[in-house]
Amino acid sequence: MIDYKLAKRLLINGEPTLLLDKEKVIANIKMMSKKAKRLNLSFRPHFKTHQSKTIASWFRNEGVDKITVSSLKMAEYFSLYGWEDITVAFPVNLHEINKINKLAKKIKLNLLVEAPESVNFLIKNLKYHINIFIKIDVGYNRTGIEADNFLFIKKLIDIINTSGKMSFKGFLTHAGQSYDLIGKEQILSLQKNILKKIANLRANFSDKDLIVSVGDTPTCSIAEDFTGINEIRPGNFVFYDLKQVRIGSCNLKQIAVAMAVPVVAKHKKRNEIIVYGGAVHFSKDYILDKNNNPEYGLLAGFNGNKWTIIKKEFYLKSLSQEHGIVKVDNEFFKKIDIGDVLIILPIHSCLTANLMKQYHTLSGKLIERL
Amino acid sequence: MIDYKLAKRLLINGEPTLLLDKEKVIANIKMMSKKAKRLNLSFRPHFKTHQSKTIASWFRNEGVDKITVSSLKMAEYFSLYGWEDITVAFPVNLHEINKINKLAKKIKLNLLVEAPESVNFLIKNLKYHINIFIKIDVGYNRTGIEADNFLFIKKLIDIINTSGKMSFKGFLTHAGQSYDLIGKEQILSLQKNILKKIANLRANFSDKDLIVSVGDTPTCSIAEDFTGINEIRPGNFVFYDLKQVRIGSCNLKQIAVAMAVPVVAKHKKRNEIIVYGGAVHFSKDYILDKNNNPEYGLLAGFNGNKWTIIKKEFYLKSLSQEHGIVKVDNEFFKKIDIGDVLIILPIHSCLTANLMKQYHTLSGKLIERL
Repeated sequence: MIDYKLAKRLLINGEPTLLLDKEKVIANIKMMSKKAKRLNLSFRPHFKTHQSKTIASWFRNEGVDKITVSSLKMAEYFSLYGWEDITVAFPVNLHEINKINKLAKKIKLNLLVEAPESVNFLIKNLKYHINIFIKIDVGYNRTGIEADNFLFIKKLIDIINTSGKMSFKGFLTHAGQSYDLIGKEQILSLQKNILKKIANLRANFSDKDLIVSVGDTPTCSIAEDFTGINEIRPGNFVFYDLKQVRIGSCNLKQIAVAMAVPVVAKHKKRNEIIVYGGAVHFSKDYILDKNNNPEYGLLAGFNGNKWTIIKKEFYLKSLSQEHGIVKVDNEFFKKIDIGDVLIILPIHSCLTANLMKQYHTLSGKLIERL
Repeated sequence: MIDYKLAKRLLINGEPTLLLDKEKVIANIKMMSKKAKRLNLSFRPHFKTHQSKTIASWFRNEGVDKITVSSLKMAEYFSLYGWEDITVAFPVNLHEINKINKLAKKIKLNLLVEAPESVNFLIKNLKYHINIFIKIDVGYNRTGIEADNFLFIKKLIDIINTSGKMSFKGFLTHAGQSYDLIGKEQILSLQKNILKKIANLRANFSDKDLIVSVGDTPTCSIAEDFTGINEIRPGNFVFYDLKQVRIGSCNLKQIAVAMAVPVVAKHKKRNEIIVYGGAVHFSKDYILDKNNNPEYGLLAGFNGNKWTIIKKEFYLKSLSQEHGIVKVDNEFFKKIDIGDVLIILPIHSCLTANLMKQYHTLSGKLIERL
């Protein structure tokens, strides 16, 4: 059933509202947590996607007690709510040494490095003990030491180990190139390639306590072989989104957040519905359709209780700062009135949630965020 | 001079920081205000770009006393700081009728409509008098009634005028298609086309008090002929950005905001510098280079006091959630150390400012934002 009159009750304060389906979020958490247990992997979820103490508590209910974040601000926030083992999966920022020291005094803090300069800076300035991971580039070419640059890696480990200020814990990778792939076959082929690189690393650094931690949602969702890997750090899976559906990491029903947006205008000639919901709500991230036109979101239905997947695919095809344009067909166009509330699945839930700054459950309960 | 060691002082809290050059902002305000006076145009600047009571006060210093916003939230915010004549240049959102009534009681509120349904809703639900503008589509094809649909426009004016609840004030247009143009010639040709449509409208609605209000920054920056137009509502010009430089609305020196971001890693093989500054800071908006690759920002220099334009053009070529990659040449690469602070001019200042939520002047003074 599709009833955009009923969906009006979902709007908070009359404005674009980020909805969260708690059941779906918990199902996603349980799914990944179970997978980690089944494959004997340590589960250190990335909390940058949700950035919420409440959602964090749902992870804790599943036995999660160690987490990943991508900024010291997030680490500070979660440390206030009882999280005591936090990895900041971002190259250490020298300008935040005071925050590092404050956190290192209080919790088990794991930082990420890839350059001797950063390690030497930490040696000079650290007041408390921390754990260190070395970022290894497994082909994404963003950050990290190349996986076969064993000599450089060895030198860095030596500096760390002789510092007396920190303990080398292992290697951290992020195969972000998986976000450009489509389909399970491509993801599995990438995973095979990464496992080879990790096997090579392990052959050169034969420490039995060495941790190898991997991160991206596509491989963590799709792959079953994690040979040589100890820890997974996926983040986006908690909500998923259309980008992940396109990649093959999940199906549409697993997407756990959606935007409720009011219809403010209609244009019959173009079969376009204008909603109050733009770049400052969704973000400008997009996926491309078959004709290389951008898609900024997918229209969902509403059955009075939950959003639903509708058969015909209608996309948010254009975004300005506050406006969004949904392109529909003639039949659908007639059913929609100004003042109706549409529900739209986001392309990139991390960025949408970052812009919206809070969530509301389907029963209207506010879920706060950093 | 380029000294990214000196730029370290610009970072607030060690994190990516949105800098504001107050002199440039005021010069941009003066420039547009003077142009409006010279051309005998009413100046109703759009405040969606800056959303700051402090920056608003700089406009007031130039004699501005009426403004444009794109949401009722912004209207509420500015009404708290003495702004009493506000146009909400967004199709009226029926779900915010309570906010409309509260504001209409307090200030001169001008709303935008394009559909009889919305007008009828207002007639039923308005408690206080408002002014109404009709949105006219001059070819952007986003919102508005087609400029030559005189019959439909006439009917709508009749409903408004017989309502007793509101006064029809005029037509509001936004030639957003100007953002896809490059160069003054294209903008002037667009303006010519728009002026024709406006002349036609005026010929059909010969009310001497009729206001015709136009909005986009490119035509307001470049055009000199505004025949038939009474009011301009540009917004972005207060900061400008790389997109506006590309269009031809301004030069690089007029850009009045820039991001200060710390260097966290370097990759010699690729001549890439990794900064802490990603999609959650800059937004994912981009312009395309000659090879159709995206550019997310342009590296500026720093002379110890202000950012400067550097001769070689180095771009932010990739963004993840928190990471940015700046591609440089070999010579430049050698000068940059981890811990240096780069300054990057944004592609779309409206979206960058929306994400950063505050500004800091070059002397470190906080400028708050809604």
